[in-house]
Amino acid sequence: MSLSPSSRSSLVDFLHELADAADKETMSHFRRPVQVDNKLEGGFDPVTVADRDAEKAIRALINAHYPEHGIIGEEFGREHDTAEHTWVLDPVDGTRAFITGIPLWGSLIGLMANARPVLGMLSQPYTGERFWGTGAEAWHSGPLGSSTLKTRSCTAIPDAIMMTTAPQLFSEEEQPTYDAIEREAKHVRYGTDCYGYAMVASGRCDAVVESGLQIYDIMPLIPIIEGAGGVVTNWQGGDATQGGRIVACGDPRLHEALLKKLSRVPDASS
Amino acid sequence: MSLSPSSRSSLVDFLHELADAADKETMSHFRRPVQVDNKLEGGFDPVTVADRDAEKAIRALINAHYPEHGIIGEEFGREHDTAEHTWVLDPVDGTRAFITGIPLWGSLIGLMANARPVLGMLSQPYTGERFWGTGAEAWHSGPLGSSTLKTRSCTAIPDAIMMTTAPQLFSEEEQPTYDAIEREAKHVRYGTDCYGYAMVASGRCDAVVESGLQIYDIMPLIPIIEGAGGVVTNWQGGDATQGGRIVACGDPRLHEALLKKLSRVPDASS
Repeated sequence: MSLSPSSRSSLVDFLHELADAADKETMSHFRRPVQVDNKLEGGFDPVTVADRDAEKAIRALINAHYPEHGIIGEEFGREHDTAEHTWVLDPVDGTRAFITGIPLWGSLIGLMANARPVLGMLSQPYTGERFWGTGAEAWHSGPLGSSTLKTRSCTAIPDAIMMTTAPQLFSEEEQPTYDAIEREAKHVRYGTDCYGYAMVASGRCDAVVESGLQIYDIMPLIPIIEGAGGVVTNWQGGDATQGGRIVACGDPRLHEALLKKLSRVPDASS
Repeated sequence: MSLSPSSRSSLVDFLHELADAADKETMSHFRRPVQVDNKLEGGFDPVTVADRDAEKAIRALINAHYPEHGIIGEEFGREHDTAEHTWVLDPVDGTRAFITGIPLWGSLIGLMANARPVLGMLSQPYTGERFWGTGAEAWHSGPLGSSTLKTRSCTAIPDAIMMTTAPQLFSEEEQPTYDAIEREAKHVRYGTDCYGYAMVASGRCDAVVESGLQIYDIMPLIPIIEGAGGVVTNWQGGDATQGGRIVACGDPRLHEALLKKLSRVPDASS
């Protein structure tokens, strides 16, 4: 980690400032009439003014306080993202949850130093919750107060409670392996978006397996899960920062068991 | 409806008292270590002390204030349920959500008069929300304040955003019809339990289609959805009170379109 303790502490304060700014924009539209635009011809990839305004608000604060930092955001792309420090933003992860009133979406805000995750935040303002981490430690605040986050132990797939946003989000090559894992697991919950990763970090769930993620869908969650004692990699066991096929576990032994199966899926790009 | 306005008003107050009692028990266990017992051999049907203690607390209040009323509850069965007024209780609808930390479970409390739904409550204490209704009107209170509930208009399946707890909860006979509807709908969200019905009542979602429900899974939700302007029936268009195959819609025209498909599924009992 290339952040000194003092800069990390002030950056954690700044992370909460960014979340405050995002919360203000998202909460002014959640559960209210909001125009939904579709970004995907022939499909349904909704975006709203909440996504756009929240990302604008976060970018404005970063530009004002850290003009030398880079930014990668879902709605407005990349700006000098080769900088040593680059922020990664998904202003509303789970826009489908957002537009249907389900409080499992979150504003994701991450910071990379030299392309490695060093800070991450998930803010869910309707429940009044925040999950944040540094890779070494992680915390939660919400209706029941504040606490450190700690994953739970679970060593084997048949004992695992898993989460995924939808069981059909996998490619033809990935689906049989995912389906076999789902059959072996104790229980799988759907519809969880970023909140599923937060539940792994909170020790309420053992694993999330997903595919097709972008950098802004996963990077901000890595310092939270790792800070709580969990492991996040791609299906080959490599760096998860750039997204793609993701497996996040609370217990490294479960992660190893899942990788044995997931790593057999042929690489889509090979 | 066989409740006079004055008795209805005092019963709505009592409904909130019952929800207060349930909230106290459920919140003392949510997101805390809790022993999970499995009710289903060869499957996973979890129950916790939260389910049992919340139902006990509700039953104690009903027995103290309305000893002549009947009770039907998920955990402790039926007591003089042939009474004119009978309460229907699911202390934690969505126990799988509860044990995994997902705040989409709810305490469901309903009242029937002569076997017809007259009052219903969904309490979700972690988000601080309540949804309740009389069949003629419905209300919501939560972090954004209080308001009446009103469903939204949506006339056709291709425009519909739907919810269901899991796409595999249907029988072999039901599955093809459900799958065809899912393909035709604009979007389907999973993992919603009772909260999906509340989102129909709130005008955030157009329909919920489910199967295999018990009386306590659906009865308390009927006065909320109908009070908000929606329609809830079984797949034949008949009374939904006893559970089974359920379709809930915000707009009666969408309900008609869905019934055209759902009513073709052969009756399992015939």
